[in-house]
Amino acid sequence: MTIQTRSRRRGGGRAGAAQRRGDAVIEQLPWSIPQVIDPPIEPLPPEGVAAIHDGAMRILEEIGIVFLNDEALAIFKEAGCKVDGNIVYLDRDFVMEMVAKAPSEFTITPRNPERVLPFGGRNILFGNVSSPPNYWDLSLNAKVPGNREQMRDLLKLTQYFNCIHFAGGYPVEPVDIHASVRHLDVLFDKLTLTDKVMHAYSLGKERVEDVMEMVRIAGGLSDEEFEAKPHMYTNINSTSPLKHDEPMIDGCLRLARRGQAIVVTPFTLAGAMAPVTMAGAVAQSIAESLSAIALFQYVRPGIPCMIGTFTSNVDMKSGAPAFGTPEYMRSTQMTGQMARFYDLPMRSSGVCAANVPDGQAMWETSNSLWAAVQSGTNMVYHSAGWLEGGLIASPEKFVMDCEVIQHIQRYLQPQITATRGEDIALEAIREVGHDGHFFGTQHTQDRYSTAFYQPFLSDWRNYEAWEAAGGVWTAERAHHVYKEIVASFEAPAMDDAIREELSAFVERRKAEGGAPTDF
Amino acid sequence: MTIQTRSRRRGGGRAGAAQRRGDAVIEQLPWSIPQVIDPPIEPLPPEGVAAIHDGAMRILEEIGIVFLNDEALAIFKEAGCKVDGNIVYLDRDFVMEMVAKAPSEFTITPRNPERVLPFGGRNILFGNVSSPPNYWDLSLNAKVPGNREQMRDLLKLTQYFNCIHFAGGYPVEPVDIHASVRHLDVLFDKLTLTDKVMHAYSLGKERVEDVMEMVRIAGGLSDEEFEAKPHMYTNINSTSPLKHDEPMIDGCLRLARRGQAIVVTPFTLAGAMAPVTMAGAVAQSIAESLSAIALFQYVRPGIPCMIGTFTSNVDMKSGAPAFGTPEYMRSTQMTGQMARFYDLPMRSSGVCAANVPDGQAMWETSNSLWAAVQSGTNMVYHSAGWLEGGLIASPEKFVMDCEVIQHIQRYLQPQITATRGEDIALEAIREVGHDGHFFGTQHTQDRYSTAFYQPFLSDWRNYEAWEAAGGVWTAERAHHVYKEIVASFEAPAMDDAIREELSAFVERRKAEGGAPTDF
Repeated sequence: MTIQTRSRRRGGGRAGAAQRRGDAVIEQLPWSIPQVIDPPIEPLPPEGVAAIHDGAMRILEEIGIVFLNDEALAIFKEAGCKVDGNIVYLDRDFVMEMVAKAPSEFTITPRNPERVLPFGGRNILFGNVSSPPNYWDLSLNAKVPGNREQMRDLLKLTQYFNCIHFAGGYPVEPVDIHASVRHLDVLFDKLTLTDKVMHAYSLGKERVEDVMEMVRIAGGLSDEEFEAKPHMYTNINSTSPLKHDEPMIDGCLRLARRGQAIVVTPFTLAGAMAPVTMAGAVAQSIAESLSAIALFQYVRPGIPCMIGTFTSNVDMKSGAPAFGTPEYMRSTQMTGQMARFYDLPMRSSGVCAANVPDGQAMWETSNSLWAAVQSGTNMVYHSAGWLEGGLIASPEKFVMDCEVIQHIQRYLQPQITATRGEDIALEAIREVGHDGHFFGTQHTQDRYSTAFYQPFLSDWRNYEAWEAAGGVWTAERAHHVYKEIVASFEAPAMDDAIREELSAFVERRKAEGGAPTDF
Repeated sequence: MTIQTRSRRRGGGRAGAAQRRGDAVIEQLPWSIPQVIDPPIEPLPPEGVAAIHDGAMRILEEIGIVFLNDEALAIFKEAGCKVDGNIVYLDRDFVMEMVAKAPSEFTITPRNPERVLPFGGRNILFGNVSSPPNYWDLSLNAKVPGNREQMRDLLKLTQYFNCIHFAGGYPVEPVDIHASVRHLDVLFDKLTLTDKVMHAYSLGKERVEDVMEMVRIAGGLSDEEFEAKPHMYTNINSTSPLKHDEPMIDGCLRLARRGQAIVVTPFTLAGAMAPVTMAGAVAQSIAESLSAIALFQYVRPGIPCMIGTFTSNVDMKSGAPAFGTPEYMRSTQMTGQMARFYDLPMRSSGVCAANVPDGQAMWETSNSLWAAVQSGTNMVYHSAGWLEGGLIASPEKFVMDCEVIQHIQRYLQPQITATRGEDIALEAIREVGHDGHFFGTQHTQDRYSTAFYQPFLSDWRNYEAWEAAGGVWTAERAHHVYKEIVASFEAPAMDDAIREELSAFVERRKAEGGAPTDF
C-alpha cells in the first residue's frame, strides 16, 4: 500500500485546514460518559462463578502468591496472614473482608474537572494505546523504535478525540529520551497536551512520586486537595504465574497512601503463563488480582481498586500471543461476571495481533471492544492505536479505532430504539402511502440531522465516486485524518503559572538526575 | 495495494498444492450447525414490542398493502379481507390467525441429505453473498460486471467453506449469459459445484418452475418426494413502502403450493423508503413481511415462512445506504424480538458499505454479523463476499468473512467457558508454581490441540517474521487463499445419470427459449 499524495480536501486544502483548527477537522460525537444499556453477556452459570471463585480462593489459600516486596510481606504478616519466605498464603475470609472495603464506584478528576470520570456501574470509558516500544505509520511503512515526537502526535490524537476519555500509559515509549528523565518529559507533554485523566507507571519510587507531584501541580492542588480524592491512577501487571514484583507493589502502596486509584491487571496468557483452559486462566488472574487488592485495602481501606483482565490465549503452534479471539472474548465476559461477584469495577482492553491496520486488525479489535461492552467493562485500555499485540503504536490504527469506538458509543444511545408516539411514525407512513418516499416528509425533516450515526472515516460513497476521489483504502484515509488533526491541534488551556511551575519541577528533577535506571 | 507475486507456500508451492487438494488448502472448522448459546440482546422493553406490533397492525388495517398480483388479490377477497383496487387491508385477527399457522422451526434438505439445515430455534446458519451485479478482486483492482467464471469461483468458495451452510442467490450475476437462459446455466453450476441448500429467484413462473424441477432432479426425487418437505427456498423483497410486486408473489405461491420454504425480506432503508425512526422502519418492515406470510399461510397452511429484515439507514447527507451501523445493529435486534413475538424464524444479513475489503469493510461486516448472533437470527444472508452495499461480490472479502464467521462459530462453542473439574486447573497451577510455565504440563499437553481457535487467515506472527514473509496485508493473503481453493477445488459427488438428466433438462429448456425477459 502506498500513500496517495492528494489529501482529502473537504475544506479546501491548506487554507481550509487553517480555518478548521481544532474540532473542525472532523465532525465527531461530543464528549460524553457512555453507559452500557444492555444486560451483560454472562456465559457462566451461577455454579461456574462459584467454581472460579473457589478455584481462585484455593490458589490463594493453598498455593499462595509471591510478593517480591519486603514491605508487602511485612504488612501481610502484620495482618495475620501466613508468610513463608516470599510466598503469602491468604485465607478466603481475609480476602473477601478486604475486597469488600473497596468501593464499587469512584471518580478520578484530572486537571480539567469537566473531564472527571466515573468508574464502575454501567459506565464504559475508553483510553488510548499504552506502552508500545515501537511505532508504525503508513508513510514510514516500517516498525521503528518510538520517539518523543511520535508520542506527542499520539497524545494530540488522545486529546482531540472526544470518544477517548483517559490518557493511559505512554502512547508510545519515547526511547530517544533517557530512561532516567523520560517520565519527566513525557508527563510534561501529557499534562500540557491533554487535560484528561492520566496515569503513573509503578516503576520505582522516584517516578511515582514525581508523577503524583506533577499531576498535583497541573491541577493547581494543595497536597490535601490532591489526597482528598483520586486525581490519577496506576495500572500494574502481576508477573504471572502468581507473582507480584517489587516496583509495581511499591508504586501502588505509594498511590494508595495518597488516595489515588489502582488497577491490577494480571497478564494471563492461557497455555503459557496460565492454564490452557480459560476457566483456569481466569481463576489464576482473579487470584493474582485479589491478592494485591487485599493488600491495598488493608493499608488504606476504601482506596479505589479495579480488577483488570488480560486473559487471552497463545497460538499453540508457535507460542505467539493471540488477541481478539473467541477465547479472549469469552474470558473477558467471564471476568466481568467475577468482577460483579466481587462488586469491583473492571478494566479490559482493545487488542489485536495484526501487524498493520488492515482487515484482521479491525476484526480482532472489534471483537475485543465489543467484548468490553458485553462484559460490563468500565475502563477500556488500549482502545485506540494498538498493533502487534501491543508492541506497535500506530496513528492510523488510532483513528480507525476511534471510528469503531464512536460506533459503539452511538450504539449505546437508547434513543435509537425508542418506540414512543411518533417513533412508530404511523402518520408519516400514511402520508407517504404506497408510492412515495420519506426524504421530504416533515417527520423526516424534523429528525434527519440527528437520526443516524455520522461517521468521520467510513466512506459511504458508491464505488465510482470513491474511485474518482482516488480509491483510497481505510488505512490511508486514516493517515490523512491523523495528519490533519496533528497539524491543526490546539492544546487545552493551561494557566501560565502552572505551566511554569511544571517546567521548573521538570528542570529541577532533571538536575537532580531523575530516577535510577537500574531496576 | 498491489499483489505480491510470491504466493504462500506453506505446502511447497504447486507440487504441494496438488497434494493438498480439497480440504487441505486450509485447516478449517468442520461442518456443524451452530447454536446461539447466549440470550438474545433485546433493546425493546415489552411495551416497545407491543408498540411496534400495534404500529404494524395499524398499517395493515388502516393503510393497507398494495399487491400487484391479481391472484393474490383474489385470494385475499376469498379470505374475506377488504380489497380496494390493488390495496389489501388486513385485520389483525386474520393476520395473527394466519401467522400462527406457520411453523416456528423447519428443515430444508438439499441434494446431499447430510447438508440438511434446521431453521428456527437457536440455530444460526450462514450463506454466501447473493445477487451483486458486479465483481471485484485484487488482481483486477476494478469493479467489473459479473460473469459465469467468476460466479463459478464464488460457488467453489461457497462449497469449500464448512462455515457456509447454504448457497443463496447467484453469488454474482453472470451477465455474460443471456437473461432468458441464465437461470438454467447458473442452476446447473450451483447444483453440480455445490451440494448445499439453494434458492430460486421469484422472477417469473418459468424460472421458478425450472429451478424447482432442477432441484428435484438433482435430488433424485419424485414429484411426491419433492413436495413432501422443503428442498429449497425463495427469498422475496417487498417494494417498500408497502407494496408486493407481481413476480415475487407469484414465485412464492408456486413454491408454497409445492411445499417449499419462503423468506420475506422487506428492504426498509430508514429515511428513504421507510420512516427515519428505526421503530417506524421496523414496524413498516414487519407489516410488509406479515402481509405476504398471511397470504401464503392462507393458501397453504403450515408452509415454512421466515421473517427477513433488511432495515438499515441512509446517509442523510447523500442519501447513500449505510450498513453495519449502530442503527442497523439495533434494528436487527429489534426485529429479532418481533420475530420471536410472532414465533417465526428470522433472516438477517452480513453487510457493509465499503467498496474494498479493507478496515471499514471488516468493522461494518463484523457489526452486522454479530448483530445477527445477538438478534437470534436463524439465517444469515450475504455473510461472505459482500461489498458496496451489495453491488459488488469479492472473493477476497468472501475469504475474510469466512474467517470472521469461523470466529463466531467457535465463540458459540460452550466448552470455551466450561468450569468443571480440571477446567479450573488447580493441580496444574500448583504444579507450575510461581516460576514455571504451562507449555509443558500434562494438563496443557492433553488439551492444546483443541483448546483454542486456530485461524486460517489471521497472521499471528510478530512483525519481523511477518515482514520477512513479504509483509502481506489481509486482503492479499485472502487473495492467495481464494486462488488456491479454486485451483484445487473438487466438486461434490453427483451420480452420472442425474448429471445427464440435469444437462438434458437445461438443453431442452434452452431449445424452448428459456424464460421471457420482458418482466
